[in-house]
Amino acid sequence: MLRDSRQQHAPGHARTGSASPSPVDRTLPVDVTGRPLQLRPADLDRFFRPRTVAVIGASDTEGRPGARITAQLRAWSDRVGARMFPVNPKHAEIGGQVCHPDIASVPEVVDLAVILVGDPQEVLADLAAAGVAFAVVFAAGFAESGEAGAEAQRRLAELTAGGPLRLLGPNTNLNAFEEFREDLEGPSIALITQSGHQGRPVFASQEIGVKVSHWAPVGNEADLETADFIRYFADQPEVGVIAAYIEGFKDGRTFALAADYAAQQRKPIVLVKVGRTESGAKMAASHTGKLTGKDRVASAVFRQFGVTRVDGLDELIDTSQMFARTTRPKANGVCVYSISGGTGAHMADLAAAEGLELPQLANGTQESLREWIPGYLTISNPVDNGGHPAGDERGRKIIDAILADPGIGVLVCPITGAFPPMSDKLAQDLVDAAEATDKVVCVIWGSPVGDESAYRDILLKSHRIVVFRTFGNCVKALKAYFDYHRFRDNYTSPFDDVARTASPAAAKARRLLTTGKPLSEHSAKQLLRTYGIRVPREQLVTSAAAAVRAAGLIGYPVVMKACAPQLPHKSDLGLVKLGLRSASQVRDAYREIVDAARDNGAGRLEGVLVCQQVDKGVEMVVGISHDDLFGPTVTVGLGGIFVEVFDDIAIGVPPFGPVEVRRMLGELRGLKCLQGMRGQPPADLDALVDVVMRVQRMALELGDDLVELDINPLMVMPRGGGTVALDALAIPR
Amino acid sequence: MLRDSRQQHAPGHARTGSASPSPVDRTLPVDVTGRPLQLRPADLDRFFRPRTVAVIGASDTEGRPGARITAQLRAWSDRVGARMFPVNPKHAEIGGQVCHPDIASVPEVVDLAVILVGDPQEVLADLAAAGVAFAVVFAAGFAESGEAGAEAQRRLAELTAGGPLRLLGPNTNLNAFEEFREDLEGPSIALITQSGHQGRPVFASQEIGVKVSHWAPVGNEADLETADFIRYFADQPEVGVIAAYIEGFKDGRTFALAADYAAQQRKPIVLVKVGRTESGAKMAASHTGKLTGKDRVASAVFRQFGVTRVDGLDELIDTSQMFARTTRPKANGVCVYSISGGTGAHMADLAAAEGLELPQLANGTQESLREWIPGYLTISNPVDNGGHPAGDERGRKIIDAILADPGIGVLVCPITGAFPPMSDKLAQDLVDAAEATDKVVCVIWGSPVGDESAYRDILLKSHRIVVFRTFGNCVKALKAYFDYHRFRDNYTSPFDDVARTASPAAAKARRLLTTGKPLSEHSAKQLLRTYGIRVPREQLVTSAAAAVRAAGLIGYPVVMKACAPQLPHKSDLGLVKLGLRSASQVRDAYREIVDAARDNGAGRLEGVLVCQQVDKGVEMVVGISHDDLFGPTVTVGLGGIFVEVFDDIAIGVPPFGPVEVRRMLGELRGLKCLQGMRGQPPADLDALVDVVMRVQRMALELGDDLVELDINPLMVMPRGGGTVALDALAIPR
Repeated sequence: MLRDSRQQHAPGHARTGSASPSPVDRTLPVDVTGRPLQLRPADLDRFFRPRTVAVIGASDTEGRPGARITAQLRAWSDRVGARMFPVNPKHAEIGGQVCHPDIASVPEVVDLAVILVGDPQEVLADLAAAGVAFAVVFAAGFAESGEAGAEAQRRLAELTAGGPLRLLGPNTNLNAFEEFREDLEGPSIALITQSGHQGRPVFASQEIGVKVSHWAPVGNEADLETADFIRYFADQPEVGVIAAYIEGFKDGRTFALAADYAAQQRKPIVLVKVGRTESGAKMAASHTGKLTGKDRVASAVFRQFGVTRVDGLDELIDTSQMFARTTRPKANGVCVYSISGGTGAHMADLAAAEGLELPQLANGTQESLREWIPGYLTISNPVDNGGHPAGDERGRKIIDAILADPGIGVLVCPITGAFPPMSDKLAQDLVDAAEATDKVVCVIWGSPVGDESAYRDILLKSHRIVVFRTFGNCVKALKAYFDYHRFRDNYTSPFDDVARTASPAAAKARRLLTTGKPLSEHSAKQLLRTYGIRVPREQLVTSAAAAVRAAGLIGYPVVMKACAPQLPHKSDLGLVKLGLRSASQVRDAYREIVDAARDNGAGRLEGVLVCQQVDKGVEMVVGISHDDLFGPTVTVGLGGIFVEVFDDIAIGVPPFGPVEVRRMLGELRGLKCLQGMRGQPPADLDALVDVVMRVQRMALELGDDLVELDINPLMVMPRGGGTVALDALAIPR
Repeated sequence: MLRDSRQQHAPGHARTGSASPSPVDRTLPVDVTGRPLQLRPADLDRFFRPRTVAVIGASDTEGRPGARITAQLRAWSDRVGARMFPVNPKHAEIGGQVCHPDIASVPEVVDLAVILVGDPQEVLADLAAAGVAFAVVFAAGFAESGEAGAEAQRRLAELTAGGPLRLLGPNTNLNAFEEFREDLEGPSIALITQSGHQGRPVFASQEIGVKVSHWAPVGNEADLETADFIRYFADQPEVGVIAAYIEGFKDGRTFALAADYAAQQRKPIVLVKVGRTESGAKMAASHTGKLTGKDRVASAVFRQFGVTRVDGLDELIDTSQMFARTTRPKANGVCVYSISGGTGAHMADLAAAEGLELPQLANGTQESLREWIPGYLTISNPVDNGGHPAGDERGRKIIDAILADPGIGVLVCPITGAFPPMSDKLAQDLVDAAEATDKVVCVIWGSPVGDESAYRDILLKSHRIVVFRTFGNCVKALKAYFDYHRFRDNYTSPFDDVARTASPAAAKARRLLTTGKPLSEHSAKQLLRTYGIRVPREQLVTSAAAAVRAAGLIGYPVVMKACAPQLPHKSDLGLVKLGLRSASQVRDAYREIVDAARDNGAGRLEGVLVCQQVDKGVEMVVGISHDDLFGPTVTVGLGGIFVEVFDDIAIGVPPFGPVEVRRMLGELRGLKCLQGMRGQPPADLDALVDVVMRVQRMALELGDDLVELDINPLMVMPRGGGTVALDALAIPR
């Protein structure tokens, strides 16, 4: 079935799907997990700016969708300066132009072939043979429609996996060939979507002056995927920001590589990613046929690569516009300026609640403003001009004075009570000032109507001003703006330092994982030791006498625990004894533990662990999980109720560096406990970071062989004291 | 100075201020705190629909603000059917009408006098003498401008405190006399604002079809206040919702009474309250001259009385519209319906994330939909029609089938990719279906442009449909809608059961509070006992021998603690000994505590407390604070890191009943711990609720005499076991 979500609306949107993650190109370098460290090259210039375009299955039979699409492709070819060749064995001529029977008959090398026929498979082989660079497949009925479709899609993927022919689709649409406004100035938004409908509002924002230059409707991503377009857009000088609507990723690693590339090019990415809720993720999955992974893991990846995630399409437009129209902030301060004290206070309140900085203005600025603002008003931030000055020559002077303040990087002017004689002047002053500064000027047009002249004819006409309709979207966009540039200023690519080969520890560790059963505590701790993670002095014993000998060597007090491959909640079952201070206590404890294990059906014990007792530290948990999409992940959090009640953990998706680990720790609400609460000394953060890095290395090197690791608790001692892993659970494949 | 924020813009907005809270009318019933249990009556019908209007200081001198205002008041009088009398000794005639030299000369009893002269004080006395019902004072320069202004405002308040003359203002504007659209149907929004600018977007929403019937610009609230207008609007049958923009309340109690009244009348209140942040509160305070109180306390009051708090003016409009156009939900289920699977999945994801219910459709509904929806699509919620059916006769049938589903109370249709031939039909079907059902139909028009015909000419023309521009605002409004009606269905007024006289305990308790110093732990526990709150068996002793005797009577094990009027963090100082199991341990502990107290400069001890040891319970904190605006408040939360790290407490503002206490407990993120985690038994919630109710009674009866109370910890035993207050801090005035 042909797809054109704009004119045809059947089945109504771009249903996308993917049968499998990106095949690994053997020529690309890989890390220790075997995943690529580079994206496969794709010269997308030939896709977006082809010299030659072939339309396979072209038509001019009136009323047929194929004819409409052929006409649209002809118009698009003309706009981009390409020669268009209709191909269809059933026609000799189309639109007054020679129609070729097949691709081989086209007299030039074809950059881009658009396939309108229902079964693209045969055609693709011909295109590959003819040296075509890019093919677009509109046909639906692939991975999104079930197993047979997925199989068909795999065959398409194979056709393009090796050779130079690259494929967009199947199940995509005409969005890439829309007519974009050419009269708008400034850097643009480049758009990537997995649904034609859901991209429409961003495209339509051109009508209110937002510049959009590209639209990649990625469809099922049998070959070309979101990541390829991110990389391409990141390289385009006219693109200011990459905006995306994502229902599922084809591949976690390729997305991470693309996001890393964009971060290095300082090209912001803003995206909506469906799947906040489990049900949402399920809907999106059934709808796209794509892997969704865990939402928290995706969010972690976004944070690691500075990707701004928003919830609504309105925020996608507004935040993208914010990035497209701005460069690095000249200062971190925001100044709110208004003709109403109430409006200013409200806006400043929301801005402060979002964590924006609203500094006091410099003395010189205050003195200047004092000249133009009525004496009964205090000069502060927010600046309230009292109304009248906006209507005369003072208006522009006030704006310029604020923008000249060295502490101010952004001026925000909310206009709620529009009054044409005054607000037209105010709007024009803001536009003029914005055109003359390299600082950021944001305006919120608060009227819900939106047909006022100050809005339509003044504010929307300038690309130097960032225009919002709500306080909320402005504040969120500003937060994203400052966060992104802070992120970017500190960013170094984690792929630069990535391990390509396994450390000697990996082989030793693998031997411990060969059992195929969950490891006992003792074995799990040996696993940790192979990676240099400290565990308590301990011995596994099988008699009371041996326990007493062990305790003597370890030093009192000791802790004793039952040890067997699968023993969760040991404490609750009476299988742990703390604070044992004498040989007789150790002997009694041995007997009690063995009895409790028998009574509680704990199964066969490996023995009883006699361990050094470690007190005085902050209990953390550090673990490894696997995400369907992004592979191994590392979690870190505070133990006890922090995890159990508040689920207060931070996730890191490898590769990441130690700076990123510190940022993850900063995410924890329980961070205070590590910093030293109520007179406690601060904890040894360096040592904690080191353990997380070692756990990351385990996660990468052991891969699927280690399904799950849970160090709980990892006791973090006061600064300088290091860490000790007091208990651990490890589950091999 | 005259004020008219619309035409005059000087000083630019309604700066409001209040010198002092509402004076207590001695004729109204009061509770045990002396605060009123009823609002002072005000017949605001005579304000909004007067038969006679006098304009004091009327003018027709061209170009003068007074002339413009006089003309506006004349037009308004004509619209509301009132006779208007100009009053000004300098004119014999104004606008072709006799002008009276003073109010006494006006030949009729005047319902409403609008004062345009700069100094209203003298005029007000005349108005009172002439039996005028309502006066409006535009002049500024009162409480918002400093102490002298506040004093002048107090004099205005005194003039209206006793007699029948009621006053709106000073420092208000003409917003009450605007021209409202009469052609819009359905229940309306009644608006209350403390800034003309900030009310303007709600007023302007009439241009997009939102019905607004009243606007009360309350100004400095020397007399009439927000609460008076809430009560009046709650009584008006044409009003569907009360919307307010609030910078500060004049009085906490009057607001609570008004909100209670509105809840009883089932009239929702939606408001923006500036002051989320401390700096925001400070700005608003300096700007309004009003008391702001703590933001969390205000939020608690809003929750107790079912008031919806929103952050932005756009949300104020959207959520108010939601309430104005709907009645009680017919069912709790939301069905998302879309012509694009992507759009539906995205909307459903956001709705689920906000906690809305998206049930599976009934079997009968699914069967009906199966007839009209293409076979390649699954029938689920969200309903994806695949596009085409929206364009023909199936479109309306699908909508009707969804609305007929007994589990569905709300249909939500997001339209992002507008395509006129199809979306016009879809919009019309939605409107027609909405007109024929008593269920709720919400539409999100996702285009950022907003000049499309389906939006302007179809959706905005119907008052039966609730129209949004963003997914986010729709989801938030729906959450508020369901929350409100759930609240309202369970609401009983807490003022019905309020104590008017003090219990016998109060006199005993007061005697303990006469010291003027913080109470020792032992005294604070006695205070709790007077209110029937259980404390451990304990004795205060002053010798080791007495300690041993006490321990024998209390029963081992015991806890011992130093006892003195001011000893926070006793444990950290070594002043607490736990788990003492023998006479010798008690004797040693006594000596160690006395020594530690001396070494740590703990000051003179009252003695040492020997207490029953209580283990096995959930540690809570329950306390009393005072809010500048809302008076005594009660807090409850889990102890330890829940309070210290997460600030996880719930606030109750008296009066409240036990049902409300349970709702407060439900707010706690640590609630899980009370419900019995990891095999622990659930805690005795009934007993906890009882303690909170007793603490409330203390808070009300002891009032300012008890500045602060902090029971920490209150040990809540397993169900049936009651509670024990293990430690307490009490600070008298």
